[in-house]
Amino acid sequence: MSRFFSDKYKSLVPYTPGEQPKSTEYIKLNTNESPFPPTEKAISYAADAAKRLQLYPDPEAYELSGKLAQLLGVEREEVLLTNGSDEILNFAFMAFCDESHPAVFPDITYGFYKVFAEINRVPYTEIPLSADLTVNVEDYIGIGKNIFLANPNAPTGIALPVSDIERIIASNPDNIVVIDDAYVDFGAESCVPLIKKYGNLIVTQTFSKSRSMAGARLGFGVACGELIRDMNTVKYSTNPYNINRMTMAAGLGTLEDEETVRERCREIIACREYTACELERLGFELTDSRTNFVFAKHAGADGEKLYLELKKRGILVRHFNSERIKDYNRITVGSREQMECFIKTIEEILEASDEIR
Amino acid sequence: MSRFFSDKYKSLVPYTPGEQPKSTEYIKLNTNESPFPPTEKAISYAADAAKRLQLYPDPEAYELSGKLAQLLGVEREEVLLTNGSDEILNFAFMAFCDESHPAVFPDITYGFYKVFAEINRVPYTEIPLSADLTVNVEDYIGIGKNIFLANPNAPTGIALPVSDIERIIASNPDNIVVIDDAYVDFGAESCVPLIKKYGNLIVTQTFSKSRSMAGARLGFGVACGELIRDMNTVKYSTNPYNINRMTMAAGLGTLEDEETVRERCREIIACREYTACELERLGFELTDSRTNFVFAKHAGADGEKLYLELKKRGILVRHFNSERIKDYNRITVGSREQMECFIKTIEEILEASDEIR
Repeated sequence: MSRFFSDKYKSLVPYTPGEQPKSTEYIKLNTNESPFPPTEKAISYAADAAKRLQLYPDPEAYELSGKLAQLLGVEREEVLLTNGSDEILNFAFMAFCDESHPAVFPDITYGFYKVFAEINRVPYTEIPLSADLTVNVEDYIGIGKNIFLANPNAPTGIALPVSDIERIIASNPDNIVVIDDAYVDFGAESCVPLIKKYGNLIVTQTFSKSRSMAGARLGFGVACGELIRDMNTVKYSTNPYNINRMTMAAGLGTLEDEETVRERCREIIACREYTACELERLGFELTDSRTNFVFAKHAGADGEKLYLELKKRGILVRHFNSERIKDYNRITVGSREQMECFIKTIEEILEASDEIR
Repeated sequence: MSRFFSDKYKSLVPYTPGEQPKSTEYIKLNTNESPFPPTEKAISYAADAAKRLQLYPDPEAYELSGKLAQLLGVEREEVLLTNGSDEILNFAFMAFCDESHPAVFPDITYGFYKVFAEINRVPYTEIPLSADLTVNVEDYIGIGKNIFLANPNAPTGIALPVSDIERIIASNPDNIVVIDDAYVDFGAESCVPLIKKYGNLIVTQTFSKSRSMAGARLGFGVACGELIRDMNTVKYSTNPYNINRMTMAAGLGTLEDEETVRERCREIIACREYTACELERLGFELTDSRTNFVFAKHAGADGEKLYLELKKRGILVRHFNSERIKDYNRITVGSREQMECFIKTIEEILEASDEIR
């Protein structure tokens, strides 16, 4: 740290992204990337946009916002596209949270909520998940703070029904509720339709997971026009040209290929079920994941040791060094071939079980 | 504004980007874009990267940082790539400025410095340029505040010699000096070599102007390793994956085509000189621009009316509604053909001079 670094950030602990190894020798099941490439139109539109990079992108993302809004059944003014969904989450913390409007989120959830709270100096409370790692809805009823919930939650993969989330939203009319729909396309229910009914709801989504665009950085928020305008004020005060031309074009292409995206989601869900069944056969205990990952522990295996053994054998999964979930590993659902290899490797490791106790 | 918007931002006035008309009928000389497309390698590398968008980009931008550092004659650890140079400027405001470390910059300069100060709630002072629109170096000697200077300055285009900037840096050892080199490739001297000597200097640059990549969003900062680490702490607390794969690839391609970039800069400089001579012939008064734009006023023409007349005739330039410079227009140096058309149009407007008095 330099002597110039502002006191306000001296205790800041940044987010740690999943490992992004420079070598390609690993089967990467650690950052919930899609096993499918971007859609054909995404690739061709992006390549075409690359020829006109000398011109600034449209700061309003007019065409893409319109197409997206249409698909979601909302108005263009109810959508805000961002540089990944991390950016829209940060905008929500910036725009609506402060000393007198603290934040609340589960103790086990997407690790960035805490970092966003810290960097924006927003007081926050972490509410423990129940013993079975589910969100206890009653904890959030009328809590009177700005609420951030991933649904399905990460890294547990467990989803709440929309009816439960609606109770939370309705019981906190003077606070913002942000529902992070990052993994919603793999079997959970989206809260997007609720934005028509509740002026305090923001739903965030991403093109990174189901849409195979993690490398393009595209996310968005959906909310009533007033909330979107407030977040736009933040955007135009930090980075008006937040989305580059190629990403915008790839996003448009992907939306035009929506059927392909849906079909791939079905394939990933099927592969998740295969992986879950196989892991259960091998004695693992799993959460009920509605995402493109499984979250699993084994009575006979130490979570971290299993992670390290897998890594030694060329498979990366994600292990969190957090007390309540240290027995688990989060395993991205890759291609069927990758998951078969993963299961075979797990079997080998369990057989040589001395190494993982 | 919604009732949820944080009080801290209620008086925030966001940055206004130059017009980005959706129709293509305009000759666009208003946002200092390059008249040249991206280099061949930029286009082909980006198109290739589009095929692997399902994978997150490298958050360290290891390869691109290395190549860039090599070209600049610094170490990889002395470079930080960002989503446009706006992002690195914001990082500098966030990391080093606060209540007790206020900022200072000229009254006439890049309009975003003020917005960054406002959104980060940093107290700031605007120091008037001299009557001839130059930065008065003595104003900044030992000022004891964090200094933000665009060199060349915008929208005046006027550059300071590095020796003057060095005096400013040396006289403020307990403060950060940020030199915004956005337009440096069009005839000014870069301060990058000074980072080896001064631990309080940050130089920012962009791929938007000389490198024809405004649409890709790529900028960077160069500074001693300690300052870069502090800004990385901010990056990893807001948006670790700030640069997408395609932009990273296009950046790498552009750096490999550095000779083409340099040749194009020479062409733009020649075209700037042509434009300046022609405008002087028509009675305009110009600043000594070392950028890819000219800044010009005419005794017989109202600045705003001239801007509007040009717009009516299909040419967009940038007019700033700021008291001290309202007589001027900032005109991007486009292609030779565009500038000939611009000069011809200006001649026509001056002939029908009633409309612009």
